Amino acid sequence: MNWISENKITIVGLGLIGGSYAKALKRLGYTVYAIDTNESSLKYAENHKIIDKGFTDVETSKINESDAVIFALYPKVFINWIDTYQKYFKKGAYITDVTGVKSSIVYEIQGKLRDDVEFIAAHPMAGREVYGVENSDDRIFRDANYIVVPTDKNTSDAVLWCKQLGQILGFNKISVLSPTEHDKMIGFVSQLTHCIAVALMTSSDNTHLVDYTGDSFRDLTRIANINDSMWSELFMMNKEPLLYEMEKFSNEFSEIKDMIKNDDVDGLRKKMKLSTLRRSYFDK
Amino acid sequence: MNWISENKITIVGLGLIGGSYAKALKRLGYTVYAIDTNESSLKYAENHKIIDKGFTDVETSKINESDAVIFALYPKVFINWIDTYQKYFKKGAYITDVTGVKSSIVYEIQGKLRDDVEFIAAHPMAGREVYGVENSDDRIFRDANYIVVPTDKNTSDAVLWCKQLGQILGFNKISVLSPTEHDKMIGFVSQLTHCIAVALMTSSDNTHLVDYTGDSFRDLTRIANINDSMWSELFMMNKEPLLYEMEKFSNEFSEIKDMIKNDDVDGLRKKMKLSTLRRSYFDK
Repeated sequence: MNWISENKITIVGLGLIGGSYAKALKRLGYTVYAIDTNESSLKYAENHKIIDKGFTDVETSKINESDAVIFALYPKVFINWIDTYQKYFKKGAYITDVTGVKSSIVYEIQGKLRDDVEFIAAHPMAGREVYGVENSDDRIFRDANYIVVPTDKNTSDAVLWCKQLGQILGFNKISVLSPTEHDKMIGFVSQLTHCIAVALMTSSDNTHLVDYTGDSFRDLTRIANINDSMWSELFMMNKEPLLYEMEKFSNEFSEIKDMIKNDDVDGLRKKMKLSTLRRSYFDK
Repeated sequence: MNWISENKITIVGLGLIGGSYAKALKRLGYTVYAIDTNESSLKYAENHKIIDKGFTDVETSKINESDAVIFALYPKVFINWIDTYQKYFKKGAYITDVTGVKSSIVYEIQGKLRDDVEFIAAHPMAGREVYGVENSDDRIFRDANYIVVPTDKNTSDAVLWCKQLGQILGFNKISVLSPTEHDKMIGFVSQLTHCIAVALMTSSDNTHLVDYTGDSFRDLTRIANINDSMWSELFMMNKEPLLYEMEKFSNEFSEIKDMIKNDDVDGLRKKMKLSTLRRSYFDK
């Protein structure tokens, strides 16, 4: 399939990200269907012209006419969905996803998928601290990265198609990583930082300090507002890379603590200089 | 002294914060002098009408005519300065500061200060990741907190005067804390978070991940760009409260790590729910 406006696309899971995909694709002229268990989300999306039509029932949905199916579900629900409903896919369809972990799902899904459809994994690194199709907004893609995560099983056509999906959705940068590279990166950049923000909030009740916190503390802990069911599942499905990054951070933090304890000002300043140097690469 | 525009004020240390104080006070009609070892900073400030006149030499400065002297120096330099030059203070002058740690300096300075002048400590919780009078900007006070940190030695007149200074500088919120309360608060809100940001940057060379980081990672590590000479001194002068907060954070982080290791999803979700609840108090 190429990106021509005659394409029909079904989005499975119409929450914040699914809804934001739908908005962008509908605006570009594609026919967009959605499948979700929540009928009121579908009604809302139909009424606001975010989708053409929504279905709670897979059997009577338009998935069998869809050239592409985009999964915006929690990882385990996604895997179970494929087991139960893959028989309804249109022959030749491309399947993609938005899941935040890769190794633990990509190989399993590719292993069990019908030979006449292709699953090419992707991770749109965009989000907001609010939920639901009502808050969907494809402008969240503008400054965000979109990562295509192919395996040896994928065709170059599917990789290209998936890159183009990231482009037409309006992402800032499109990259390609292997599942292992992706999971290591996400363990550090996203999961470790969420663990830190949570620990900062739960280590003691510091809410009486709200009057004294500046913007830097608010920035640092913004992601402490966290969807517990989704993130606990993501952590469990990326256990090894995440624990590796947590261990490394812990050791480094202890080293800095010991320097403070032992009045090792030189060591401390060296760490700070290195930190400042490295952080400068992250300035846009 | 009250805040009347006939007052003359000397700022000692004309960097980012000293310069920002000068800008605000000059705009309000006060006569503002500055003392700094860097002549080009003084020239810049004179040329840009940030101050009325700058001095590199304390002896020939206008400090003996100044109704208030504001110290924007590193903590140890501040203490040494008082030893050497306090003889030049005008009788009845108020002395205040901007130092980020309190217990380790306030009592010492009040203990050695002449009886006919009064030191009332304050901490303007404002800053930027740039330095020097050239970058000074009193708009950084608008969203920031200003904390007056009196001891038993301070008069209520001086506390009121210092609160009013925070108000006329344009701070968002003025509070009063004891030195111990201040240092515990700053250990958590500011110093612990700086240690975390540094450890995130120094634990391994992750600069190749720059293409994959979203805004949340940039927000979290913005303070990893850190003035090593100033912050190492601040850490050393607030060792006990900082080490206490670091220890507490470490233990909590380990607990979360063990939950992930042991598939304790229920425990993990409880932490995340608590984190989300507590973080909600910090939303403006």
